[in-house]
Amino acid sequence: MSYVWNEIRQNRLLWLLVMVPVVIAAQKISPSAHTPLFLLSLLAVIPLATLLSNATESVAAKTGDAVGGLLNATLGNLTELIIALTALRLGQFTLVKASVAGAIVANTLFLLGASFLLGGLKHHVQDYNRGNARLQTSLLFLATVALIIPSAVGSAGSEAAPEFLQQLSVGLSVLLIVAYGLGLLFSLRTHRELFGATEEVAEEHAPWPLKVALATLAGVTVMVGLVSEIFVESVQVAAETFGMTPAFVGFIVVALVGGAAEMASAFSAARKNRLDLSVGIALGSAAQIALFVAPALVLLSYVIGPTPMDLQFWPGVVVMIIIAMMTAIIVTNSGRSTWFVGVLMLMVYLILAMTLYLLPPHSQ
Amino acid sequence: MSYVWNEIRQNRLLWLLVMVPVVIAAQKISPSAHTPLFLLSLLAVIPLATLLSNATESVAAKTGDAVGGLLNATLGNLTELIIALTALRLGQFTLVKASVAGAIVANTLFLLGASFLLGGLKHHVQDYNRGNARLQTSLLFLATVALIIPSAVGSAGSEAAPEFLQQLSVGLSVLLIVAYGLGLLFSLRTHRELFGATEEVAEEHAPWPLKVALATLAGVTVMVGLVSEIFVESVQVAAETFGMTPAFVGFIVVALVGGAAEMASAFSAARKNRLDLSVGIALGSAAQIALFVAPALVLLSYVIGPTPMDLQFWPGVVVMIIIAMMTAIIVTNSGRSTWFVGVLMLMVYLILAMTLYLLPPHSQ
Amino acid sequence: MSYVWNEIRQNRLLWLLVMVPVVIAAQKISPSAHTPLFLLSLLAVIPLATLLSNATESVAAKTGDAVGGLLNATLGNLTELIIALTALRLGQFTLVKASVAGAIVANTLFLLGASFLLGGLKHHVQDYNRGNARLQTSLLFLATVALIIPSAVGSAGSEAAPEFLQQLSVGLSVLLIVAYGLGLLFSLRTHRELFGATEEVAEEHAPWPLKVALATLAGVTVMVGLVSEIFVESVQVAAETFGMTPAFVGFIVVALVGGAAEMASAFSAARKNRLDLSVGIALGSAAQIALFVAPALVLLSYVIGPTPMDLQFWPGVVVMIIIAMMTAIIVTNSGRSTWFVGVLMLMVYLILAMTLYLLPPHSQ
Repeated sequence: MSYVWNEIRQNRLLWLLVMVPVVIAAQKISPSAHTPLFLLSLLAVIPLATLLSNATESVAAKTGDAVGGLLNATLGNLTELIIALTALRLGQFTLVKASVAGAIVANTLFLLGASFLLGGLKHHVQDYNRGNARLQTSLLFLATVALIIPSAVGSAGSEAAPEFLQQLSVGLSVLLIVAYGLGLLFSLRTHRELFGATEEVAEEHAPWPLKVALATLAGVTVMVGLVSEIFVESVQVAAETFGMTPAFVGFIVVALVGGAAEMASAFSAARKNRLDLSVGIALGSAAQIALFVAPALVLLSYVIGPTPMDLQFWPGVVVMIIIAMMTAIIVTNSGRSTWFVGVLMLMVYLILAMTLYLLPPHSQ
Repeated sequence: MSYVWNEIRQNRLLWLLVMVPVVIAAQKISPSAHTPLFLLSLLAVIPLATLLSNATESVAAKTGDAVGGLLNATLGNLTELIIALTALRLGQFTLVKASVAGAIVANTLFLLGASFLLGGLKHHVQDYNRGNARLQTSLLFLATVALIIPSAVGSAGSEAAPEFLQQLSVGLSVLLIVAYGLGLLFSLRTHRELFGATEEVAEEHAPWPLKVALATLAGVTVMVGLVSEIFVESVQVAAETFGMTPAFVGFIVVALVGGAAEMASAFSAARKNRLDLSVGIALGSAAQIALFVAPALVLLSYVIGPTPMDLQFWPGVVVMIIIAMMTAIIVTNSGRSTWFVGVLMLMVYLILAMTLYLLPPHSQ
Repeated sequence: MSYVWNEIRQNRLLWLLVMVPVVIAAQKISPSAHTPLFLLSLLAVIPLATLLSNATESVAAKTGDAVGGLLNATLGNLTELIIALTALRLGQFTLVKASVAGAIVANTLFLLGASFLLGGLKHHVQDYNRGNARLQTSLLFLATVALIIPSAVGSAGSEAAPEFLQQLSVGLSVLLIVAYGLGLLFSLRTHRELFGATEEVAEEHAPWPLKVALATLAGVTVMVGLVSEIFVESVQVAAETFGMTPAFVGFIVVALVGGAAEMASAFSAARKNRLDLSVGIALGSAAQIALFVAPALVLLSYVIGPTPMDLQFWPGVVVMIIIAMMTAIIVTNSGRSTWFVGVLMLMVYLILAMTLYLLPPHSQ
């Protein structure tokens, strides 16, 4: 642990780690002080995200950017999974679906767009491996088809036959999980040479040993989970204090803070001109949520939920996922990035966020 | 004919050719034994498809893959055309449209996807000429625009003005046929050098002489037509015995068996690393149905139909054609294929098939 | 001015300039003779467009194709802006929106398609800089998202809350203008080296001095504005005489004649194998209307309009803009053009035009 200790002494941002026990204690003492808890949990997430980013880069230095990105995406999505499982047990399907959809859109548009912008402000033009971007956007395309098709083909039938929707949701969920598994087999096993980074970058400081890095990843992930839960519980009430609509909070604020850890890693990698890692985290995370987390939640709802959950999202959300997926396909087609590409993606995200922010509450 | 005879002696699969007269005789004797006729016709189609594939490859060896693919696509679509003409004469426009749309989707997603998968399981990475894929997907895009626009722009007007829809359908049909003709002029005449195969492959056995190959093509096509008709007549009742919905049968089963001959050629070419021929057959066939067969049926309906047929498809079908077209555009953009690309396309097809299979009959 | 005078002596088409004072006089004398005024103004626009094209090419010879294209697009759109401002002051929002949407679609499909066709009939294969096409189509994509999202997310809410739509329209307008400004910063300042022409072409005749060219541009633009106004006033009545529907006139005829000046420049550049200039004019003009003119009109409506205008277009128009944008993205992806690419784009435009032409008036 001396590595981690060293890191904490050198990086003053990490001193904020003291906020982690503070916010947990505060929540025990005064669980209904939502606005202070909201602010405290925000402060506590920052150093955890930083630590997670360092640990991930150490692992990626040993395993390559593709595996590193996958690992980071998976650990980053653990938070979303834990939150969604809690909501699933309580039968709050609307919250589950909003957090899933919000995470897909935030990863695809905000996380990738901001990585391109931050990287592009430092480096004139950045190249990255199109192969990985293509794989992940193709998986997102498949997931989007699965979301569109029930309502498009069933049309009026969806109202008439909830049984049809349940059977179809289970079938689609199995298909998506199989596709995700085959995608891993493809990118990590049979064709891994296609997914190498476009350029090797020398590490500026010696990475941690693998054991230390993995232990840190695990430990910090647990702490992120604890703090995130406090955040999610407090954000709804705190947000209303600040005048935000529920749709905006569920879709934008929760998704952005839930992705804080992945953001720290992706942004730092982009600044270091390791855009392959950023793309792997952003699109890999989005694809994992769409093809693994969401279908797994549907299947798990038969075990732990009060009633089964289906895979049908409401139309506005489907349109936002289509827009995010199309943006990613168009933008990553060239395998080349500049600051303006990042601006474009952030603008698309801003349009969605602004619409949700202004949407009158009764029409949500 | 000694070439064909030689082939039959060497390839035991072709011994199934004996089923062709059997099924034709069986249909004369007992035309209402639908389930046995269904199984017999399935057995009879297999050797015919194999023979057709051999003959096509012999022709393609003389003419190049682009012309070979076009020839194969055209002969393969003769079956669809014959079936559709019969239905058109009887005024069964729903059946005509379902078979046309099902064939477009099956060619684009299943035929191409399975070619990529089968080729990719044998060859690590396969390259093909992007030019031809781009041409065919652009033509599909044009046809899709023609299918979307009447309902999108006319909106409520389509209900109010059947006359508008008729005039528009005739106009669109003429436009699509002209575009298809110009596409042939472009790819076979003015810019044919852009459509050469990416790599020349040595033939493993000497091709048949052109005359023999063409005569075989013609003869086998007629037999496929005869057997297909028995199949189509029996499939509906047989399928219900097996518990399939009419939408599933019309859209999936008929399209797959109707495309058996093209499949044999395309799959065999993919295994031999001649992916240009596979792409030519799959996308060329889809484009031909969308831009030539369907519009020709609309125009012919004024001559042979009881009433004129329009070009408007119901919304669920339009969405499926859009999805198939988008998948083809995204997937063929790189001009490079692996087994996973095939899996992705088949997954999209599976999603459509599963939805139609589960769809409750009364909402179709 | 001797340069311009020389040009006029050499090019007999320019002798038609005499029609400019004729049509202005005719309008003063007999303002209700719509059909003659319509034909006179058509004749007067032709030489003005030719002169504008020569002046633009002289400027582009000094500044490079990217700046030249932008300049041409801006001056070309001045006409649209002047017409729209007049209609805005009178509160005719339907006319404003139709002319804006019609101009986007005409520039993207007709202007670019005809440039590809005319260039391709003279040159076998033409290459152009994909970078500029990608930038402009990405901007169009962003604008399309801004047009889709209000109705998609708001769904029923848009009817219920006009206030929501107004706030959202202002927000989106500001976003789009900012994105357009950043796009100019990107293409003309920080990354201008990415937007160079793919090949340098020798000028066949010596360009005019910059001062003469700029003065001609300014003077001719004013005259185009005057003649266009007469044209727009007379076209509606004249078109009905020829049996055209209002939707067809507003969307197709006005947009095509309003773009006459840009067409002359773009077509002439395509024939001279300077396709970068053509692409810059066509897509640059479409992007400028979508991201600058339309949002600016929304913001200006708060100052000069009787009531504020929103950014919501009716569904059929949104579909047409989506189709135009998707066509441009698919077609410009390769950075290579032939005559058939032009045919395809013109066919898409023809499908839209034919639908509007046949649409029964009461369903518009």
